[in-house]
Amino acid sequence: MLNTLIVGASGYTGAELARYLNRHPQMNITALAVSAQSADAGKRISDLHPQLKGIIDLPLQALKDPSEMAKGADVVFLATDHQVSHDLAPRFLDAGCVVFDLSGAFRVNQPEFYTRYYGFEHRHVDWLAQAVYGLAEWQADAIRQARLVAVPGCYPTASQLALKPLVTNRLLNEAQWPVINAVSGVSGAGRKAGMANSFCEVSLQPYGIFTHRHQPEIASHLGIPVVFTPHLGNFARGILATITARLQPDITRQDVAQAYHNAYHDKPLVRLYQQGVPAIKSVVGLPFCDIGFFVDGEHIIIVSAEDNLLKGAAAQAVQCLNIRFGFQETVSLL
Amino acid sequence: MLNTLIVGASGYTGAELARYLNRHPQMNITALAVSAQSADAGKRISDLHPQLKGIIDLPLQALKDPSEMAKGADVVFLATDHQVSHDLAPRFLDAGCVVFDLSGAFRVNQPEFYTRYYGFEHRHVDWLAQAVYGLAEWQADAIRQARLVAVPGCYPTASQLALKPLVTNRLLNEAQWPVINAVSGVSGAGRKAGMANSFCEVSLQPYGIFTHRHQPEIASHLGIPVVFTPHLGNFARGILATITARLQPDITRQDVAQAYHNAYHDKPLVRLYQQGVPAIKSVVGLPFCDIGFFVDGEHIIIVSAEDNLLKGAAAQAVQCLNIRFGFQETVSLL
Amino acid sequence: MLNTLIVGASGYTGAELARYLNRHPQMNITALAVSAQSADAGKRISDLHPQLKGIIDLPLQALKDPSEMAKGADVVFLATDHQVSHDLAPRFLDAGCVVFDLSGAFRVNQPEFYTRYYGFEHRHVDWLAQAVYGLAEWQADAIRQARLVAVPGCYPTASQLALKPLVTNRLLNEAQWPVINAVSGVSGAGRKAGMANSFCEVSLQPYGIFTHRHQPEIASHLGIPVVFTPHLGNFARGILATITARLQPDITRQDVAQAYHNAYHDKPLVRLYQQGVPAIKSVVGLPFCDIGFFVDGEHIIIVSAEDNLLKGAAAQAVQCLNIRFGFQETVSLL
Amino acid sequence: MLNTLIVGASGYTGAELARYLNRHPQMNITALAVSAQSADAGKRISDLHPQLKGIIDLPLQALKDPSEMAKGADVVFLATDHQVSHDLAPRFLDAGCVVFDLSGAFRVNQPEFYTRYYGFEHRHVDWLAQAVYGLAEWQADAIRQARLVAVPGCYPTASQLALKPLVTNRLLNEAQWPVINAVSGVSGAGRKAGMANSFCEVSLQPYGIFTHRHQPEIASHLGIPVVFTPHLGNFARGILATITARLQPDITRQDVAQAYHNAYHDKPLVRLYQQGVPAIKSVVGLPFCDIGFFVDGEHIIIVSAEDNLLKGAAAQAVQCLNIRFGFQETVSLL
Repeated sequence: MLNTLIVGASGYTGAELARYLNRHPQMNITALAVSAQSADAGKRISDLHPQLKGIIDLPLQALKDPSEMAKGADVVFLATDHQVSHDLAPRFLDAGCVVFDLSGAFRVNQPEFYTRYYGFEHRHVDWLAQAVYGLAEWQADAIRQARLVAVPGCYPTASQLALKPLVTNRLLNEAQWPVINAVSGVSGAGRKAGMANSFCEVSLQPYGIFTHRHQPEIASHLGIPVVFTPHLGNFARGILATITARLQPDITRQDVAQAYHNAYHDKPLVRLYQQGVPAIKSVVGLPFCDIGFFVDGEHIIIVSAEDNLLKGAAAQAVQCLNIRFGFQETVSLL
Repeated sequence: MLNTLIVGASGYTGAELARYLNRHPQMNITALAVSAQSADAGKRISDLHPQLKGIIDLPLQALKDPSEMAKGADVVFLATDHQVSHDLAPRFLDAGCVVFDLSGAFRVNQPEFYTRYYGFEHRHVDWLAQAVYGLAEWQADAIRQARLVAVPGCYPTASQLALKPLVTNRLLNEAQWPVINAVSGVSGAGRKAGMANSFCEVSLQPYGIFTHRHQPEIASHLGIPVVFTPHLGNFARGILATITARLQPDITRQDVAQAYHNAYHDKPLVRLYQQGVPAIKSVVGLPFCDIGFFVDGEHIIIVSAEDNLLKGAAAQAVQCLNIRFGFQETVSLL
Repeated sequence: MLNTLIVGASGYTGAELARYLNRHPQMNITALAVSAQSADAGKRISDLHPQLKGIIDLPLQALKDPSEMAKGADVVFLATDHQVSHDLAPRFLDAGCVVFDLSGAFRVNQPEFYTRYYGFEHRHVDWLAQAVYGLAEWQADAIRQARLVAVPGCYPTASQLALKPLVTNRLLNEAQWPVINAVSGVSGAGRKAGMANSFCEVSLQPYGIFTHRHQPEIASHLGIPVVFTPHLGNFARGILATITARLQPDITRQDVAQAYHNAYHDKPLVRLYQQGVPAIKSVVGLPFCDIGFFVDGEHIIIVSAEDNLLKGAAAQAVQCLNIRFGFQETVSLL
Repeated sequence: MLNTLIVGASGYTGAELARYLNRHPQMNITALAVSAQSADAGKRISDLHPQLKGIIDLPLQALKDPSEMAKGADVVFLATDHQVSHDLAPRFLDAGCVVFDLSGAFRVNQPEFYTRYYGFEHRHVDWLAQAVYGLAEWQADAIRQARLVAVPGCYPTASQLALKPLVTNRLLNEAQWPVINAVSGVSGAGRKAGMANSFCEVSLQPYGIFTHRHQPEIASHLGIPVVFTPHLGNFARGILATITARLQPDITRQDVAQAYHNAYHDKPLVRLYQQGVPAIKSVVGLPFCDIGFFVDGEHIIIVSAEDNLLKGAAAQAVQCLNIRFGFQETVSLL
């Protein structure tokens, strides 16, 4: 049994992490923490997330000194804001914990990226260099050795799982940037009050056009430029990405199919579609990323779908945990 | 042409008022005002409500001294918070304007009601006594003489229009309180950020059980006690009320039908259903209150539906304006 | 290990049954059957319900002679239309199976009820007399002996679980009929094409006013008359019931609380609310019925919520199975 | 006053047409027709579309011999299936009517297009050659002379209004096909029962990938190839198109802005965005197409939004009528 601590347990992702880890046969939750200032400290997690009532009713504790909280914890999950993770992760790491960070704080090994896209200076470049990017299907070997896993977020997971078989097999015509159109449920904005996620204001609409920080994250890890356009959708959960790209001149549908098969035939949390088309409803509440692809001449359209809070956050974090500690990859997820 | 001023034009109701009054052939909007502290001052109304772009693009002005703003205004609409209306209405009245107040500040002629249900002491009992309750189909004569019209809100309008024909004709068995279950769209909570109206938190659910301030407002104006249970629904606009009551022993369906016919056959904004059942989708964007009724033995179920921002707010206010100044009742509404 | 057969596996309830029974450690699914005429025969269940892809991909088989299909099956679940269940259940019973029927065919032990409300003559009055009504929290002893369990549907479960503690403790003033207003997600209408459940036609609206067949089912099993008004809601899953009733003169909130506590403190699938209010989002995807109650003088409002496909159908059926065969009540459900 | 007949008035588009034409000061509706086999014949239009109750309650008549029905009609609107329009339009034209056809039957002046994409042989190539494509902002001169206007549908309108200023000004790098991702509300599928538009089955999802008939329609009228991927969205009304394209090397944002300004500054039903981003909620219920554009290096993203039933159907048809007969372009639309 490993002892684990979840920091940021009041949010939507934190609640999903708590649910998964609570039913994980090898894990024991020692504490659910929220920021010291949070008005939620002292409440039970099921007061904020009533669906958990009777399933997990642990209290939310105000975060104390990490070196104190780390005592007795083998593993820490950080479902916190980018800068909070940036500050906390090294302290838990120094105390000997393995850290799974669900923020963007350690995802891109280029310190200047943080100044430019996140608005803060990265002061832990050593840990940034050591952090393993937790795109689970592609990074298992590195994850097994990791002290710090930077779990990719929802858009990058859906985008990269869809494109990586094409990129690694050099099937794409790189003169033309892949166009990633993705629509996310409102939960992607986190559990907070704001006009933008107010019920009556939400309406299908792109945002962050040409400026979203996930564009360089995706491009950096794929190794090719992309056009990435996120959209807010009028639903609570799920991401659907429709990706249009151009293939090298002589690539056939069969070449493409082989690349996807090789990449994912033995990966339990990626479901390849031979028929039908991925849809939001097929993945909500489930830990999968669904992928379908369609070839017409030199054009290819790849459709990927996932639950943004699960394969796009909590489920992938637990999948990384399972890989890191040698458990079966889907324990507690299915 | 009458000159009019709308105070509180940044909200959902204010935007609907602006749209109606902008196209009203007898009205000229002199200003759209928001509270002096509002961050929206200086923006155009269509920046906040993009659906109005190209239709009405007037700027929102910070509210100044009412006696100044009243100059040149014949009519003022207050789509403001209860206490703001309480403070502002007398100042516009003193300046000679006719005031249509869409808040609760002048709806119940019992000063102690405000201490108990609104949390403030009413300091304008003279105006409270003079205010006419603007339930348009029932108060036309009084409205024609009014200086101050207190336009009823969404739940009271749907509830009272449904029950008033039964009450005034003494068809109900008063030993049993009518049970009003009503579901409102999220816009009823106003245009503001808050956890309760955050997209992911909204889910069909009752609230304010036994404690909502509309219960005594409804009971007071109907003259009978009621059980009123409001619900938040997972849609932006509309109210549906399902009302269950008991009839006097010998009352027939025909008696009931006659009462509704007498009350509404010549009222253009109440649509009586001979077949079918009122539904949210049939009234959204429209100024009607739809009413259907069903009798089984001594039980009656009345179903009423309206757009909470229109017949439940802005449209009824303009209807009152039309009645007050002798225009045709539906001008600019249909 | 018990072998089980699911008939009607193509529908929404059938899919949920298949998911539960597939992961149940004591159950082995021998076949998923659909009607002999169904165009879905030969497809995999995950072709119709893509969320099940990779979880359960069994084929749907055309239903054959029940006496053949019963061979090797210990248990049969019927998620079929009322009349189909009426015809099939006795044949599986005669072949020695224990039958859990999710239709209305054996819920009310009054043959004339079927002529009147279901439009067919009941020809198996012997089995009707033996059938146990599977309201799990109240019928455990009878279920343990049952050959045929008639699992109650969504509205009756939400309504009866809410009212039964009051009725059995004689807390209600029966001169006034409880008023049950309930709103169901569209999945309650089953998986089929029809104008009424077409996306653009769905809108919050009551239906079957005074005429819905669940009214007499509820009244019959509770032993008191009720006014029951079902509504269609603009969401896929879930039921919320808001029930208004009158208490006997001297009953206190504490009396009521005691009644609910006694009824449910040891029932794992009923969650009583001490604070907060049940909501659709708190129960979707979960096997619980959530219940809250509010007392004001002689009036009581009880709010209950459940997933109509789970505690209102598949989860309760599996709960009955667990009770029947002595498994832990929540096996495979949580 | 012109007399007009609407054929196909029972559908969503027909109902919108009826509403517009009913309030049009120069139009007189002589009949609302439905197909001779329709079960809706004899009902009032407001029985099917209760929102119209009290606004337009005309009966739906079974379609009779067009030459009969054309008597006294100056104008005919066909909101019918493609093949029905194909058959009917010539008969109304022969009877002297001006015809506005909202189907695809006369949109592409290549008879073989119909065999390939619509599955029927076009037998009226003379009328096909004479038909004017009613993309109102770009075809006003031709529309003024037209006997038969083929009103473009929802996707082609949103796509072409967005791209045409770039294409006509030769700003695009044609080596790279514009990628059109568009999401439509479910009403785009028409008013009918079907599993695909059943409430519980609808979920954000692309369809018709590389095969939708609007791709060649758009490409044909624009004169350049495009990749067009339609999606079904989980909302009733509206279309949002996100279009990614590549500019010629030296084109600046200013060049692009000038092109859009020149095209639309005097067009009342296209709203150009200088700030903000078009969204579904800003156009639902309104006759506008909203367009915003964003330039980053050689890439451009154009976002357009419209109500699929209005600017994507009924409003554009009435706009064409207004242009055709010299009325002000927005009469009855605003």
